[in-house]
Amino acid sequence: MKKFIFDFTEGSKEQKDLLGGKGANLAEMTSIGLPVPPGFTISTNACIHYLASKEFPQSLKKEIQEHILTLETKTAKKFGGLTNPLLISVRSGAKFSMPGMMDTILNLGLNDQSVAALAKKTDNPVFAYDCYRRLLQMFGDVVKGIDKSRFEDYLSHYKKQKNYSADTEMLAEDWQQVIEVYKEIYLEVTQEVFPQDPYQQLYAAVEAVFRSWNNSRAITYRRLNHIDDALGTAVNLQAMVFGNSGNHSGTGVSFTRNPATGEAGLFGEYLINAQGEDVVAGIRTPLPIKELAQQQPKIYQQFQEICQLLEKHYRDMQDIEFTIEEGQLFILQTRNGKRTAKAAFKIAIQLVADGILSKKEALQQLTPEMITQLLHPVFSESHLKTQTAIAKGLPASPGAASGKVYFTAAAAKQASENGEKVILLRQETSPEDIEGMVVSQAIVTSRGGMTSHAAVVARGMGVCCVVGCDSLEVNEFLKQAQFAEGKIVEGTEISVNGTTGEIYLGTIPCEPSQEFPLLEKIISWAKEQGNLQVRANAETFEDIQTALQFGANGIGLARTEHMFFGEERILEMRKLILAENKQERQNCLVILKDYQKYDFMEILRLTADLPCTIRLLDPPLHEFIPKESELPEMARLLNRPLSMVQQKVADLKEINPMLGHRGSRLGVTYPEIYEMQTQAIMEAALELTINEKCQVCPEIMIPLICEEKELAYLKNILEKTIQTLFEKYQLTIPYKIGAMLETPRACLTAKSLATTSEFFSFGTNDLTQLTYGFSRDDSVKFIHEYQEKKLLAEDPFQHLDLAGVGQLMQTAITQVKPLQPEISFGVCGEVGGDPQSLVFLKEIGIDYVSCSPYRVPAAILTIAKLAK
Amino acid sequence: MKKFIFDFTEGSKEQKDLLGGKGANLAEMTSIGLPVPPGFTISTNACIHYLASKEFPQSLKKEIQEHILTLETKTAKKFGGLTNPLLISVRSGAKFSMPGMMDTILNLGLNDQSVAALAKKTDNPVFAYDCYRRLLQMFGDVVKGIDKSRFEDYLSHYKKQKNYSADTEMLAEDWQQVIEVYKEIYLEVTQEVFPQDPYQQLYAAVEAVFRSWNNSRAITYRRLNHIDDALGTAVNLQAMVFGNSGNHSGTGVSFTRNPATGEAGLFGEYLINAQGEDVVAGIRTPLPIKELAQQQPKIYQQFQEICQLLEKHYRDMQDIEFTIEEGQLFILQTRNGKRTAKAAFKIAIQLVADGILSKKEALQQLTPEMITQLLHPVFSESHLKTQTAIAKGLPASPGAASGKVYFTAAAAKQASENGEKVILLRQETSPEDIEGMVVSQAIVTSRGGMTSHAAVVARGMGVCCVVGCDSLEVNEFLKQAQFAEGKIVEGTEISVNGTTGEIYLGTIPCEPSQEFPLLEKIISWAKEQGNLQVRANAETFEDIQTALQFGANGIGLARTEHMFFGEERILEMRKLILAENKQERQNCLVILKDYQKYDFMEILRLTADLPCTIRLLDPPLHEFIPKESELPEMARLLNRPLSMVQQKVADLKEINPMLGHRGSRLGVTYPEIYEMQTQAIMEAALELTINEKCQVCPEIMIPLICEEKELAYLKNILEKTIQTLFEKYQLTIPYKIGAMLETPRACLTAKSLATTSEFFSFGTNDLTQLTYGFSRDDSVKFIHEYQEKKLLAEDPFQHLDLAGVGQLMQTAITQVKPLQPEISFGVCGEVGGDPQSLVFLKEIGIDYVSCSPYRVPAAILTIAKLAK
Repeated sequence: MKKFIFDFTEGSKEQKDLLGGKGANLAEMTSIGLPVPPGFTISTNACIHYLASKEFPQSLKKEIQEHILTLETKTAKKFGGLTNPLLISVRSGAKFSMPGMMDTILNLGLNDQSVAALAKKTDNPVFAYDCYRRLLQMFGDVVKGIDKSRFEDYLSHYKKQKNYSADTEMLAEDWQQVIEVYKEIYLEVTQEVFPQDPYQQLYAAVEAVFRSWNNSRAITYRRLNHIDDALGTAVNLQAMVFGNSGNHSGTGVSFTRNPATGEAGLFGEYLINAQGEDVVAGIRTPLPIKELAQQQPKIYQQFQEICQLLEKHYRDMQDIEFTIEEGQLFILQTRNGKRTAKAAFKIAIQLVADGILSKKEALQQLTPEMITQLLHPVFSESHLKTQTAIAKGLPASPGAASGKVYFTAAAAKQASENGEKVILLRQETSPEDIEGMVVSQAIVTSRGGMTSHAAVVARGMGVCCVVGCDSLEVNEFLKQAQFAEGKIVEGTEISVNGTTGEIYLGTIPCEPSQEFPLLEKIISWAKEQGNLQVRANAETFEDIQTALQFGANGIGLARTEHMFFGEERILEMRKLILAENKQERQNCLVILKDYQKYDFMEILRLTADLPCTIRLLDPPLHEFIPKESELPEMARLLNRPLSMVQQKVADLKEINPMLGHRGSRLGVTYPEIYEMQTQAIMEAALELTINEKCQVCPEIMIPLICEEKELAYLKNILEKTIQTLFEKYQLTIPYKIGAMLETPRACLTAKSLATTSEFFSFGTNDLTQLTYGFSRDDSVKFIHEYQEKKLLAEDPFQHLDLAGVGQLMQTAITQVKPLQPEISFGVCGEVGGDPQSLVFLKEIGIDYVSCSPYRVPAAILTIAKLAK
Repeated sequence: MKKFIFDFTEGSKEQKDLLGGKGANLAEMTSIGLPVPPGFTISTNACIHYLASKEFPQSLKKEIQEHILTLETKTAKKFGGLTNPLLISVRSGAKFSMPGMMDTILNLGLNDQSVAALAKKTDNPVFAYDCYRRLLQMFGDVVKGIDKSRFEDYLSHYKKQKNYSADTEMLAEDWQQVIEVYKEIYLEVTQEVFPQDPYQQLYAAVEAVFRSWNNSRAITYRRLNHIDDALGTAVNLQAMVFGNSGNHSGTGVSFTRNPATGEAGLFGEYLINAQGEDVVAGIRTPLPIKELAQQQPKIYQQFQEICQLLEKHYRDMQDIEFTIEEGQLFILQTRNGKRTAKAAFKIAIQLVADGILSKKEALQQLTPEMITQLLHPVFSESHLKTQTAIAKGLPASPGAASGKVYFTAAAAKQASENGEKVILLRQETSPEDIEGMVVSQAIVTSRGGMTSHAAVVARGMGVCCVVGCDSLEVNEFLKQAQFAEGKIVEGTEISVNGTTGEIYLGTIPCEPSQEFPLLEKIISWAKEQGNLQVRANAETFEDIQTALQFGANGIGLARTEHMFFGEERILEMRKLILAENKQERQNCLVILKDYQKYDFMEILRLTADLPCTIRLLDPPLHEFIPKESELPEMARLLNRPLSMVQQKVADLKEINPMLGHRGSRLGVTYPEIYEMQTQAIMEAALELTINEKCQVCPEIMIPLICEEKELAYLKNILEKTIQTLFEKYQLTIPYKIGAMLETPRACLTAKSLATTSEFFSFGTNDLTQLTYGFSRDDSVKFIHEYQEKKLLAEDPFQHLDLAGVGQLMQTAITQVKPLQPEISFGVCGEVGGDPQSLVFLKEIGIDYVSCSPYRVPAAILTIAKLAK
């Protein structure tokens, strides 16, 4: 027969899978001699067994009875006994603590007889009957699902009748009366009498815990937090100690350090003469833990020592529950304390300073999410409490911001110039919206996923962004957005939480992040650990500076097309696209080259001796063309007949632009564009070398390659251009030409590409689109449904798909690395900054990842945590 | 030193790589004792060497001299000799005969002195000076590029002056005068005197042959016919024999069988007293070969015997050149004769009947192109001669047709109903054009590639089609198409050649194909050979019937969406898409189910015990929605507000529909559609089993799968539906559920899909799109340029890309076959019917291919030819 139950004296803190977090820690504390009331844990295996068979195992009942007997012996009390009754607390305890789970039932074992015995034994009938009514209330609520308010309303009514203002005024007779009514409520709702048999109470409580594993709140929580549904929960049964047994008793919780700021010193609160739930319930105001030093100095001293011991033992800040019974201290729970990002960073640094943790161990306590949280402004918690979200979308770029809504980039820009704080709200954004996006406090779209244009650009800029917010019905033409209870019009003030995806009406005050020095220290530690480099996807002065400050080891992706979207530049770009002959095209290219050269000077100067990968023009040309309605204006600006502009725009239209005339394909059909870009890059590099003694080595990257001959053709064009410049400047400098691996075919034929390419970078966004046949722009229509139906474990645009995309990447690396180990493999798609994906990327031998500047520190931390 | 030259006595017919086709056959005929004038072949290696070094190798000159000496000995003549001069013919001869190559120079070695010697020796000065002027003319034209008309115009002028009507009237003095003027023309154009040194003539001629390998016509021809540029050409030098040396001399060509009809018996013509080029030149009318039997019965007898010998020796119909010199027969060339498809089939069947070839060998003489040619109507050759094409596109579906142009499906349909023969001319077609396509004699589009909608549908229907005809500027709104010299308007009559891609103005008479019995015999032989099955992509009664008649082994792809495009059905489909609630949707589905069930009855009844794979709905829903301008009409028909229809259409719009909400994704989000289709299929199957005792086993195929969970989810829905029907009908019949492998991810994870899928079929069209990131619809914009720049050897939509797409397919098969050999792998994309791709498909272990009905016989033949 399988053993389902473990006494607290049997387990240890490592056994969380079996005993749950709470059980494992109770066992651990017992084993190191702390004053833990005796008890035992019903393992997660029992829960799994129960859920599979839908039956309470007979053998488990027997095992419970045996352990209760032991407990009776240890405590010299008897479960359901009529002289000195043993009372039990029942608490759930999964491996990870989860909301929605059945939590706690106290005082189990009391019935109409034993309550009298308890009253007699303690000589405290008020206490005894209070315990019984609490049991009735908790059991009714938690096990039988009776609405709590049924009990509470009656108690309020009773106290009012009696003119009592607090529970403490209640006499034993009062509680007895209340108990009678509670039992009636119980009978009325459940059509059963409250069970008098303590074992019946016990089994029902345990079964309720098991069942609560599969209630909908718990399921949702697990899905959101990627917790395996098969883990199951444990149940802890423990002899009761009573904080409500008089004025030398009490109960409280304390952190070993401040969980909000990380400051050292106990941080908690307690209540005299109270049971656990009273602290949380908020009926009486608890006292700060420090006051215990005055009230019970010896107990306080003992508690402080235990706290220090536990922190050292667990090597982390602890969150501890305790009870004092008649001047005797009991520890009921300890766990690693939840903390804000700021506190986490401070505590990690302190623990290293205190010699408790090594740097490497301290890094393990930090998560990438904490960095995100640390860096972005947040809504003030107190103000947020009073608000209700009107809509919720995908949290695409963290942060918090308020402002007035505008529905077009132009309107947003105009308003911003008038000094307004603006929020751009659109169905979706496109590159031409960039000037409106730049000036916005936050960007909200009703369509698109985590890697939509809005999301990518916003993250790149570190601007708060919510996408795919489909409960907002945005009509850009009417300049309004409908939501369930109203509508937003131009100028409506809203607040956007990019960390949660929630949208609020009105302005909510923000608290800016001021934590950069903390982060800097952690990044420097992290960089000592990892061997996988982190670069940034960036091309503007601000972004590159941010990235380098955040520890980026160079630029892994500078997108040259982003530089064409300035107001003057896009006009030149449009002229280029509409040019009627080579001469006209050449004229535009001369002007564009000067712009680009200026940009590349700045980029290469900033990155200096760090690597810098510049990608040649990638998007289809029609992305540079404005919308239908703006064509007349464009024709006027370009001084061309409208019909000609319309014809050209129609010619550029593609059915599947993602699979169309873009990237290397533009390079093949318009080699002069890539020549111009190469000239701009290399002239900048040469002039920096000559005039500023910089040591630069530009890495020129060609996008969308799918065939070796294509790459060789383009490389040849680039090299000829470069050779001409070397002759002109009478100087040769190092450079590299490489291919982006973003089509499945490029990955499959990497070996042949490697004869031409000097480096590779996986473009995982496009590679994912092509491997699945999912359009990033369109898949939002069905990808949620796939996730809900569990057909996709995760959005492959957020977390690398190992089986498909990962396999292609591995194929490429395996083909090339053994023969040409000098060829580096980077990743410059969104997953390059995704902590979860980094595990696999490191495993397959990626040399560097590149992500948006604000994701750089999290990536560095993740890699450090992966280091052996 | 490398040996560059081989005497005719040294080689054999197997050495075509080294000696070229002509040289190898001259050597072969020499070795079997036929009367071939002596000579030697300069090998292709010499050409390759020359082209690489751009220099005429000294060693080659020496070798030539040595072989000329041998020739002098054999013929007892002397090259450039003044008593009995040796004259030489120079002919190119590559491995494959090619137009555009420098062909022939006769009488080489003559000069001002030796011509007199020849005159004296032969006592025939007319002959001698005629030979010399021919040399001047041919050498000037072929080696020096002097426009032929310069010579011809003068000769005409001279004869007119003299009142001669034919060359035969020319006297020696006349030729001498002409020679003087020819030499002046030569000097004027080349600024050189005509070389008197015979060796100088010879080297120049050989070099000219070498150079002609790289003239642009030759290059184009090689590209079109996939001939390797690196092969090079050989040069044959041979002692002259003279058909123009009197009335017992002559020259001619003959096939051993009729090359147009395949009938047995010599088929050729000859001229008395003439040199080779006179037969072709058309100045004198040659006589049918049969007349030689009267004129020179002994020679005819000898020739006939040689013809029979050569046909047996080469085991194929021969095309033979001969010359009679003073009553003596010489054979100058033999080669396998070019023939029409019809002749090829007849000859192959005859050769088997004659015991010359086995069936297997006979099949090797037939090509898939011949089947295509055999099956489709063709323009009458005599009428075609007088026409010039006005435009040329991609030959998407073979055949020939004439009719009046219409620019919309509706107009085409209307005109067709009025009894007109119509040709649909559009920028591109979409599924809603289907009713216009069905009634058209031919379909022409200005955009799109070989696998565009128009091309695929037209091939499926066996309708002549030209796509990507971008020299036609089609404006559907103005109903006109501009071409270089004019424009086509509605009602203009044009003729379309789907075999060549050419478009003509006016009507050209057609000759229909009547050759089905020939084909039937060949298919039956072919089916004895291959072990790779051929199925058809078909769903209409006509197509399935055609496919089965053509030898298809079942249906590999019945596209259920094609069944929704009928006029009534599409209305129901549109109602379904616009339904506002489940009830409305359900109502439409009931009606659609009846339509589908009727179709499936027909399909399954026709295919009977052959396998039949039915694919569930694949395209995105917006493909069923008409264009913007037709929405008001649709709103009226559906009785819905226009705004609602517009909104729905806008919602369905996708940026990259190819990567969007379609295929299995529709199945996941609208399971009721797949349920309906499954019901229709299985009810049809059950009722056929019960009422008609058919033994059917429908294979239901789910498109666009990219994940095992997705497949399992859908399979479960289908199976539940089927189980319900089995209970209802009280009968269980066999069926299979399988996945289409058309995303890279499906191929990469085939092993996990195989736990759920009972069969697989590669959708190579979509797989190619995704592997390259090429949209079939859009890639036409750049794919030509890729081919011109040799960045893509071939269009991967026409011929399977082995390195990328092929690798993915192989990965899938390798993952699954060893573990689950019972799972079949089919191919149902366009390349399934492509002979070139079949080699690879057979190699990787594909179980069957499926292609449009008209491609079935060619596929069967190709597979038979591949059989070991």
